[in-house]
Amino acid sequence: MLSEETLERGERERVLETPCGPVAYGLENVIVKVTSISDIDGERGILWYRGYRIDELARHSTYEETAYLLLYGRLPSRRELEDFRGRLLASMELSPVTVSILRELAGVHPMFAMESALAAEGAFDSENQRLSEALKQGKYSAAEMKLAIKVAERLIAKLPIIVAWHYRLSRRLDVIKPREDLSYAANILYVMSGREPDPIMTRGMDLFLVLHADHEIPASTFAALVTASTFSDMYSVIVTALAALKGPLHGGANEAALANYMRVGDPAKAKDVVEAAAKPKGPRLAGVGHRVYRTYDPRAAILREFFTREFLPKFGDPDGLFSIASAIEREVLNHPYFQQRRLYPNVDFWSGILLHYMGVPREYFTPMFAVSRVAGWLAHALEYWENNRILRPRACYVGPRDLKYVLIDER
Amino acid sequence: MLSEETLERGERERVLETPCGPVAYGLENVIVKVTSISDIDGERGILWYRGYRIDELARHSTYEETAYLLLYGRLPSRRELEDFRGRLLASMELSPVTVSILRELAGVHPMFAMESALAAEGAFDSENQRLSEALKQGKYSAAEMKLAIKVAERLIAKLPIIVAWHYRLSRRLDVIKPREDLSYAANILYVMSGREPDPIMTRGMDLFLVLHADHEIPASTFAALVTASTFSDMYSVIVTALAALKGPLHGGANEAALANYMRVGDPAKAKDVVEAAAKPKGPRLAGVGHRVYRTYDPRAAILREFFTREFLPKFGDPDGLFSIASAIEREVLNHPYFQQRRLYPNVDFWSGILLHYMGVPREYFTPMFAVSRVAGWLAHALEYWENNRILRPRACYVGPRDLKYVLIDER
Repeated sequence: MLSEETLERGERERVLETPCGPVAYGLENVIVKVTSISDIDGERGILWYRGYRIDELARHSTYEETAYLLLYGRLPSRRELEDFRGRLLASMELSPVTVSILRELAGVHPMFAMESALAAEGAFDSENQRLSEALKQGKYSAAEMKLAIKVAERLIAKLPIIVAWHYRLSRRLDVIKPREDLSYAANILYVMSGREPDPIMTRGMDLFLVLHADHEIPASTFAALVTASTFSDMYSVIVTALAALKGPLHGGANEAALANYMRVGDPAKAKDVVEAAAKPKGPRLAGVGHRVYRTYDPRAAILREFFTREFLPKFGDPDGLFSIASAIEREVLNHPYFQQRRLYPNVDFWSGILLHYMGVPREYFTPMFAVSRVAGWLAHALEYWENNRILRPRACYVGPRDLKYVLIDER
Repeated sequence: MLSEETLERGERERVLETPCGPVAYGLENVIVKVTSISDIDGERGILWYRGYRIDELARHSTYEETAYLLLYGRLPSRRELEDFRGRLLASMELSPVTVSILRELAGVHPMFAMESALAAEGAFDSENQRLSEALKQGKYSAAEMKLAIKVAERLIAKLPIIVAWHYRLSRRLDVIKPREDLSYAANILYVMSGREPDPIMTRGMDLFLVLHADHEIPASTFAALVTASTFSDMYSVIVTALAALKGPLHGGANEAALANYMRVGDPAKAKDVVEAAAKPKGPRLAGVGHRVYRTYDPRAAILREFFTREFLPKFGDPDGLFSIASAIEREVLNHPYFQQRRLYPNVDFWSGILLHYMGVPREYFTPMFAVSRVAGWLAHALEYWENNRILRPRACYVGPRDLKYVLIDER
């Protein structure tokens, strides 16, 4: 499995020569918007949200605060944060129709269920519809921005409930309402498992959510922007992002990394695995290399440190996966092949182990990614609306012209 | 209401100046792929599908044949066409779960219901899943292309059933199965109304479907391509396109045009309406002007001719809408404002009247557009997969950097 975040070896030409001139294929390095949401310095390995470094946010912030920061553009006061948390909690529910749909779809892959349930839920959010009507009139001023933020908050609140309830229903368990005294991260684990999570597990989930909340404009964010640019409704914008994230070239690299560690099974085999990956046409090493980062992914460093400082001292390494991944990492960092190509572990290298140890089944890895990234998707859509232009590129036509239509009996 | 197809007056700057250099905002004129599916000559007012002029296809072809042409790249033999029709007919059904979901969503706007139902249906199409798995392994050779075509055919078959059954359920009517002896266009009218349609009505529906089946890469097709480029599944690709088409800047212009004719109410008022639209800051005239066509939209000409030669002689102009639209058209064509700007009637100018006279309620106009365009969406996705590269542009960061994180109690 490849990954959007994987530096692609032997990938297709980056510039496509066409009769209409050279084309930046995949829109690589083509700028489609200005942003003040997130920024990446791939050379130095730095990620900022709204100007704050990701390592500072990982150390001090929570997902609620980070989502507020992404949506509103600044850190909240304590009062603002409490109000925001209260609004999220109050919206962590679904229409009865959406719950019925989740029940109907209990047996299917959660990404299909999320797309279906979210589209349905959008039809029952009257403010979503009201915003849609306003956009239709070409309006996006202060009142509409306020409305858009309200709808955005509801989407952030509802997405984890859709995921958690699908998980429960797929296991023939009753759905559970979130608890007012729990944080957003703790509630996700609680609403899935029915048990109040250990604080270290909550911290792990919170870190996962903070680290994945935005990352400039990968394909899911870009797809969301295309839909947003037609002034479609906000639920459809997020359904679009889910549909794109579902693709294995985008989401899914942490699943592949975890599967790899399980297959390897023993740290002693790390050297062989890395040697094999360094061979021409060798298998890719999931979670290593990145299209933007040419050094250690700052998010990977944060997860690694969380393991060594907080998680392992309390829970150990139950399935030995951290020790296998560490052994692979050591070999990668010391191998000339990876050094020369500047291929380093990325966030997916560690996040699969984290989700696995938190009890999240593999098919819910991408849904959890979505639960976090929804904040970024929404922030980008709202930012684009401030200076909206429909995204409508061109194709270069290379087919035949003016063919003579031959009647069917004369073909 | 604006339209993607409307030449936007007073629109945002086409080139956005950014600290990273000038940006073709909205990706205007940026080429993202080569294609041999459709081509537009906006100066001369010509549209080709696979090299055949749209007026030849409108005269001789049917939607089934046109969809075959778009998907397979060539016109079918009679035998191939019969087989294709048979496969479409056999797939015009939905899983029981999807029907339940449509029942649950009978009261909501059909576009939400379509997104939700189609995402659900995708989970029950095992070949859709199998293709997804193959793409995940990076495979897209002859076997996968064949599989993709099969799934594409099923999507073309299922989409009108989703629309028609939603329509029936929303009116508390039982769902109706398509009839083997009816054409695709006739079946759509039959499955909605329960009555075998008049041949002229069927011809009208068929024309509507042929004329809307592809149009290079507007936002819905582009959104579909972004999702396809992650190797997501084909149902999610079409869910994405629906989400984008739902936006009033893209779909919806024919609704606006129809609403305008109803508001005008009298051909004698056409002059005033057109004069008002020609004033600075005057209201836009829905269905007039186009981002690509600088002359009469060939699809509009075909619909106009259908009215005068086939529809009106048999059915007349029951609500007087054709005569109102004709009067508006005459004024537009003779007015210096529209002449100088080369603003001519486009397909939406006439298609709303046609759908209305066929008994399609206004909220089903965009769903009907989708039923036709799905052929184009699929053809473009399959074409892109032949030389896939994930669509991942960049943003130009203009926000602050390295802000100091202040602890919440010190803010």
